[in-house]
Amino acid sequence: MEAYEELLARLKDIDLISQIGGLISWDQEVLMPPKAAVLRAEQLAWISKTGHEKLTDQRIGVLISQLESENGLDDVEMANVRLARESYDRATKLPTEFVEEMAKHRSRAQISWTEARASDDFSIFRDDLAKAVELARAKADYLGYDALRYDALLDLYETGLTVERVDPLFAGLRENVAPLIRAVMDRGRRPDISWIENNSWPQEAQEKLSHSVAEAIGFDFGAGRRDASTHPFCGGPNPDDVRWTTRYNESDPFGSLYGSMHETGHGTYEQGRRRDLDFQPAGQANGLGVHESQSRLWENQVGRSREFCEWALPLWKECFPENMEGVGVEELWQAVNLVEPSLIRVEADEATYNLHIMIRYEIEKMLIGGDIEVDDLPDAWDEMYEEFLGIRAPNRALGVLQDIHWSMGAFGYFPTYTLGNLYAAQLLEAARDDLPDHDSQIKRGDFQPLLDWMRSKVHNRGSILMPAELIEEATGDSPSPDAFVRYLGSKIERLYGVKA
Amino acid sequence: MEAYEELLARLKDIDLISQIGGLISWDQEVLMPPKAAVLRAEQLAWISKTGHEKLTDQRIGVLISQLESENGLDDVEMANVRLARESYDRATKLPTEFVEEMAKHRSRAQISWTEARASDDFSIFRDDLAKAVELARAKADYLGYDALRYDALLDLYETGLTVERVDPLFAGLRENVAPLIRAVMDRGRRPDISWIENNSWPQEAQEKLSHSVAEAIGFDFGAGRRDASTHPFCGGPNPDDVRWTTRYNESDPFGSLYGSMHETGHGTYEQGRRRDLDFQPAGQANGLGVHESQSRLWENQVGRSREFCEWALPLWKECFPENMEGVGVEELWQAVNLVEPSLIRVEADEATYNLHIMIRYEIEKMLIGGDIEVDDLPDAWDEMYEEFLGIRAPNRALGVLQDIHWSMGAFGYFPTYTLGNLYAAQLLEAARDDLPDHDSQIKRGDFQPLLDWMRSKVHNRGSILMPAELIEEATGDSPSPDAFVRYLGSKIERLYGVKA
Repeated sequence: MEAYEELLARLKDIDLISQIGGLISWDQEVLMPPKAAVLRAEQLAWISKTGHEKLTDQRIGVLISQLESENGLDDVEMANVRLARESYDRATKLPTEFVEEMAKHRSRAQISWTEARASDDFSIFRDDLAKAVELARAKADYLGYDALRYDALLDLYETGLTVERVDPLFAGLRENVAPLIRAVMDRGRRPDISWIENNSWPQEAQEKLSHSVAEAIGFDFGAGRRDASTHPFCGGPNPDDVRWTTRYNESDPFGSLYGSMHETGHGTYEQGRRRDLDFQPAGQANGLGVHESQSRLWENQVGRSREFCEWALPLWKECFPENMEGVGVEELWQAVNLVEPSLIRVEADEATYNLHIMIRYEIEKMLIGGDIEVDDLPDAWDEMYEEFLGIRAPNRALGVLQDIHWSMGAFGYFPTYTLGNLYAAQLLEAARDDLPDHDSQIKRGDFQPLLDWMRSKVHNRGSILMPAELIEEATGDSPSPDAFVRYLGSKIERLYGVKA
Repeated sequence: MEAYEELLARLKDIDLISQIGGLISWDQEVLMPPKAAVLRAEQLAWISKTGHEKLTDQRIGVLISQLESENGLDDVEMANVRLARESYDRATKLPTEFVEEMAKHRSRAQISWTEARASDDFSIFRDDLAKAVELARAKADYLGYDALRYDALLDLYETGLTVERVDPLFAGLRENVAPLIRAVMDRGRRPDISWIENNSWPQEAQEKLSHSVAEAIGFDFGAGRRDASTHPFCGGPNPDDVRWTTRYNESDPFGSLYGSMHETGHGTYEQGRRRDLDFQPAGQANGLGVHESQSRLWENQVGRSREFCEWALPLWKECFPENMEGVGVEELWQAVNLVEPSLIRVEADEATYNLHIMIRYEIEKMLIGGDIEVDDLPDAWDEMYEEFLGIRAPNRALGVLQDIHWSMGAFGYFPTYTLGNLYAAQLLEAARDDLPDHDSQIKRGDFQPLLDWMRSKVHNRGSILMPAELIEEATGDSPSPDAFVRYLGSKIERLYGVKA
């Protein structure tokens, strides 16, 4: 097993570089002084070049091939070899000049996208978007695929994901969730949230509330940090140093609280990784979908439950004594669960969110497959919003130009958001079987049993299994929209008294 | 000149690694969560190993040798070759196993020193100190020297420094400053600082005061940061991202203000480097002595002047309106210039500080030269304090165990502190010749002319010259204690009405 030891040593080297990169990227987002940007880019380019050089070292290819023909590897060893193969292939299949071309185009496209959005003019972004689609197709061709080009891109963000697997998930959502939303809209009863809108919510108190909640859930602030940043994220170098951020808006206290619970979900996942697998790919968190399941679990499945609101109400009253005077559990619960079709994905509620994603998924599939032209995209976007959400963007900035992803060439990324929602529902349904007292535990703020369940079924399993296998092992079912549809249906019925 | 370009490219690579190391070390000191320490050490070890590998690449040696025989290099090119030779030799002359042995011993000795100081028991540190001395001697032998072993160590912190050069500097101080202090003590008049001692000084107001002063001096907060840390320092990756720290004590407002002015001095030096020499050794700040001259200049030469106090008084009153009621310029100036022999170096005033250093220098010289045994060190320390400062430590913790330096193997470092004080006095004397309105400029808070002078004479000169050459170019004189003695003598006379 000398080859295996050598491979691990090389992977450790690569992982340390990526830890360092994680730390300085965090610094860049959170507290770097503005003039430092140019040289920071040089540092990050150095990190990325050095990591790429180490990863594409031919010796790694030799070791992997040797180990792939080895018998008697255990689960973890096999996973390390499989994951090393995956990274090695992804890094070596793309020619260096192509990687550079993509990087340059990304910088250019982000600028034109920013301009296009600011001036609400799709034509400014049009050519760069067309080029981004072309590059994404070329990337898929380099990486290879069985059925569809788009599959090669989906696989980048969640290994094993294909159109064949994703289509039925979105079909289930479209058939069940879209009618539910229409029923809510037809019913026309909007909860009274004037107590939110008519008050100001001081940042300091928001910080206290979200910090207490993150701590109660089980985020270890001795091995991590909370900071403020324009774009909330969870990062940092390793499980002993997990750093997440949130942002504050004094006219909306929910953004920072639910944003914090979201990042706390990501953060507890990172902190819960198996420490005997430090520096090994098998010990890393699984794909983006599984990661998102942890953030959505705490943000939505737990955070927007009536039981959680019951536990959290006294904390709310402690942090905002005047604003919360006379507000009861029911009002709080209704307010955090307002269902209302809106144009902007990142502000969407739990029910409508996945339809936003579905629209992007269908569009990406068509773009990569050549079934739609870039010029037809803006109108296609608006028509799908009309069809599935019953609303139409008054301009391009609120329509097709709202997301940064395509300017970054990240085709295939969006579906992982919805996978996260579906997995979260599946996981909680399975956890409830093992935790019959779940609701009363949440009601009294005892989050430990649920966190422990996630620790053993998800966090500790690292990347030993493929994402879909992990969900199946943890829940007994392969990925499916059913649990989410059941969850949402019963919640909407309780909230709005309607059924799909 | 292909060899030169290749050398520069390799030096840039090494500099980027050290920028990254600077950033993550800053993070470690300032905001890293406690549990992250173990893996942070792995990251830093990776940085240090990678940097060392690149620096000791034989190809660098080949390039340097080739360029050393080249004619027609300009000043900057010659400096780059000379400085590359210096780093290359320092890195290659020490065998890898020896470097590892030193690193391991350093970790061990820091632990035993910490224990020894906490329990006031020199014997706990004794063996590790003896070993540290032995290693320092071996290091000197590997590095080589002409006259004395200790010279090889002095040279590490300020290139070209030798006992032959340092001895006359300290002799000048001993002969002139020691009698001055005795005269102050004999006079026995201690200014009334009860207005400091009897008040509490809120941290927030201290932050405001020190921030305003740093900004007024010319530190660019768009290219740097100010934070709090237990051990104040100035660090960060490069001139666009200079980060200094301070600490706050609510019963002493001077610590944070003068600490901030000190670090601001270091910070303006870093921010003032020639940007066309980015990534080149010739563009780096000069040795530790010159760096310390910039911190001492603003902290002491400017910051403790009567003119500065006159400008700063309204700021003081704005930050601490109640505490400062009735306090005038004279009281403030007297308070920031209290001369009083004390046991702890880091708390010493401007007059006594260099005697603390002189004692350490004399002891190091004897230790490395084998003229004193480690067992005799604690008493020798106390006797020298008695002789030069007229006070004796009641225990070892306040005596020989007070500084961390020897546990880190940093023999030869201390003298650079005093060099900084001497250089600061020489530089200001020379600057006054070019800035006849200096005093009135300071009085009205116009720090730009002095900063500009330092920019052109010191900051922009990088490491193109050796430290002593830089001082001579800037001031017309080689390093000497005279300017400092004149400065201190005249100040003490104004403050205490005494002469040596």
